Amino acid sequence: MLLETDLIERRRKIQKQMGEIGMEGCLLTMPLNLYYLCGSVFNGYYYLPTEGEPQMFVKRPSNFVGKSVHFIRKPEQIPDLLRERGGKSPEKLLLEGDELTYNEHLRLQHIFNLGKIGNITPLICRMRMIKSPWEIQQMQHTAEKQVLVYSQIPECYRPGMTDLELQYEIEYRMRRNGSIGFFRTFGNHMEIFMGSVLAGKNAEVPSPFDFALGGAGMHPSSPLGANGTPLHRGTSVMIDMAGNYTAYQTDMTRVYAVGKLPTEAYRAHEVSRYLHQEIMDIARPGMACAEIYRKVEERVRQEGLEANFMGTCQQARFVGHGVGMQINEWPVLAPRSKEILQPGMTFALEPKFVIPSVGAVGVENTFLVTESGLKKLTSFPEEIIPLE
Amino acid sequence: MLLETDLIERRRKIQKQMGEIGMEGCLLTMPLNLYYLCGSVFNGYYYLPTEGEPQMFVKRPSNFVGKSVHFIRKPEQIPDLLRERGGKSPEKLLLEGDELTYNEHLRLQHIFNLGKIGNITPLICRMRMIKSPWEIQQMQHTAEKQVLVYSQIPECYRPGMTDLELQYEIEYRMRRNGSIGFFRTFGNHMEIFMGSVLAGKNAEVPSPFDFALGGAGMHPSSPLGANGTPLHRGTSVMIDMAGNYTAYQTDMTRVYAVGKLPTEAYRAHEVSRYLHQEIMDIARPGMACAEIYRKVEERVRQEGLEANFMGTCQQARFVGHGVGMQINEWPVLAPRSKEILQPGMTFALEPKFVIPSVGAVGVENTFLVTESGLKKLTSFPEEIIPLE
Repeated sequence: MLLETDLIERRRKIQKQMGEIGMEGCLLTMPLNLYYLCGSVFNGYYYLPTEGEPQMFVKRPSNFVGKSVHFIRKPEQIPDLLRERGGKSPEKLLLEGDELTYNEHLRLQHIFNLGKIGNITPLICRMRMIKSPWEIQQMQHTAEKQVLVYSQIPECYRPGMTDLELQYEIEYRMRRNGSIGFFRTFGNHMEIFMGSVLAGKNAEVPSPFDFALGGAGMHPSSPLGANGTPLHRGTSVMIDMAGNYTAYQTDMTRVYAVGKLPTEAYRAHEVSRYLHQEIMDIARPGMACAEIYRKVEERVRQEGLEANFMGTCQQARFVGHGVGMQINEWPVLAPRSKEILQPGMTFALEPKFVIPSVGAVGVENTFLVTESGLKKLTSFPEEIIPLE
Repeated sequence: MLLETDLIERRRKIQKQMGEIGMEGCLLTMPLNLYYLCGSVFNGYYYLPTEGEPQMFVKRPSNFVGKSVHFIRKPEQIPDLLRERGGKSPEKLLLEGDELTYNEHLRLQHIFNLGKIGNITPLICRMRMIKSPWEIQQMQHTAEKQVLVYSQIPECYRPGMTDLELQYEIEYRMRRNGSIGFFRTFGNHMEIFMGSVLAGKNAEVPSPFDFALGGAGMHPSSPLGANGTPLHRGTSVMIDMAGNYTAYQTDMTRVYAVGKLPTEAYRAHEVSRYLHQEIMDIARPGMACAEIYRKVEERVRQEGLEANFMGTCQQARFVGHGVGMQINEWPVLAPRSKEILQPGMTFALEPKFVIPSVGAVGVENTFLVTESGLKKLTSFPEEIIPLE
């Protein structure tokens, strides 16, 4: 289980796919893509030709060490540097079409005078869906830390505190247990800081962001999550804080209760737990992600909880999502998902319910798809945990 | 000092500029641009025609309230909705060329069948350079909180701790004092979490990111800042943590010492303090930002500190930067900066020095440019503060 073996394998797979579609290479510059293909982050460009060895064109850091490293000031130098080494400047090139800004992309098109342009982003997203043994090991390590921090949540609570005050205590314990802080999402429309604590009526507030639930947030410029709601008796507190203890995340939600909640809340929570068990019983490689969504939806309807499922006035139309270096990876467990479960996939399942005036309930776990079914990475008690 | 007055004024200015360059309107979708023009964040599109009233096309949240709001599922619905209201679908449109991804931009081009495309990003960046009285009030509030948290740093320190352990304590106090957490930078190549603590030899480690100084960071996927360096005696600890207590940031660095530092460190720190005084004495509206850089560089040369200035093996080529809703706004105080100081600009000045084996020294303050000169927003003692 070595990162180096993974890096070689990833390059080989990309080269094979580039060859199949008649492209000459790809050029990457996004930090996470560089980390995925080189094991380190630099400011510059990574050129992987369909045939031959990768070349790194580095602006910073100045002490960057690696095979085939060229220090550059600007990407305009790359074509000549490639030619000087007896290679050619590619005319059929894949670029990060879903990540580069429009003007960055145009600049690269112009530099390489491209005849054919492809998009490397979906190719890498598809590869990243399937985790290697090394990546799974990273996620297991993350899950252990996440579980450890969740076990400390009851001691974070003091009567009279707000959702935000509780969140600060959890964040502090996350960091002291090695959380790397930064919460990686795909795309430039998902702004989140370390996760979400949702309590009481705030669980009903819709958010502009495409997460499972919302919350008003603490400032209009960041409308998501905790908003200063006092943790009164009869309030459910849903904790969905980041599992970012390595570069690989796990995603886990547990619910805590201040005093006793209405029966309805406990019942909906048990439906979520039952759904986890049901999906664990049936999910196997080959099963469609859309089928998982349908199973969940059907059970929710049978239980008469449609109006509470994944929100009230705004309801998310997915019940789970891939997780890895970003929190919103492929596959998505949604009605129109085209993906099929494959061994090595890791996804979070999060059937959640919002109970008006009480808060949110439901469990979220991260699963690994194995040949024989699902393996739960985030093992931790799943009942509603009392806070006082 | 009302946000609403600002919003009207911002729209008016953009409309005027769009008219001057013969464009029919602009379409915005980035969260921060929406906040800047509407005072709130939503998932959707804001269309501002050169003549007439803005229209909002909202995907989420479902409870979004405002004048001229249309709920949509996808941007393809926008042209018809504009025509249905007696307007026209623009053919000369400004888009967020330095922020949208390539594929998002192509999609919008296609939807509107554009004859002429412009880039709204630099226009907004230029407007955002000049802060309104309301924005300045936000920054003053932020600065007060940042100063309060920095005053608590000595009580965060315990002998034997590492740079990371100190950082966790500071973050905790930041949050409890209202930090909104999320650290906004411009561009997709600047990854940072809540700021930077740099101690000892780690201050010499170059980073891939375009910040003033580097540091190895706690994980190869996030190579910036604290890395677990023990805070031995004779170590300088540079604290450059986020001032993000409103949507408007301030930027402030102070240096703390474990035990006594070598004389060289105190001397370099005094040069930084002297530079702040010197720039405060001469900076006025009309002065070129490049001139400020040259003044600083000249003084550094006179003091024989070139080899330590803004790093050792990798040296940043700027000594300050605009600050506001993002930490790296216009203007940049760099040799080739084209900007001229204007009233209402806010910038951070950060002449810093790295002393090998000791750490980083130097002060950073955020200034407001007024008619009569610079006003310091981050007033707090500037000498090296002993930690034990």
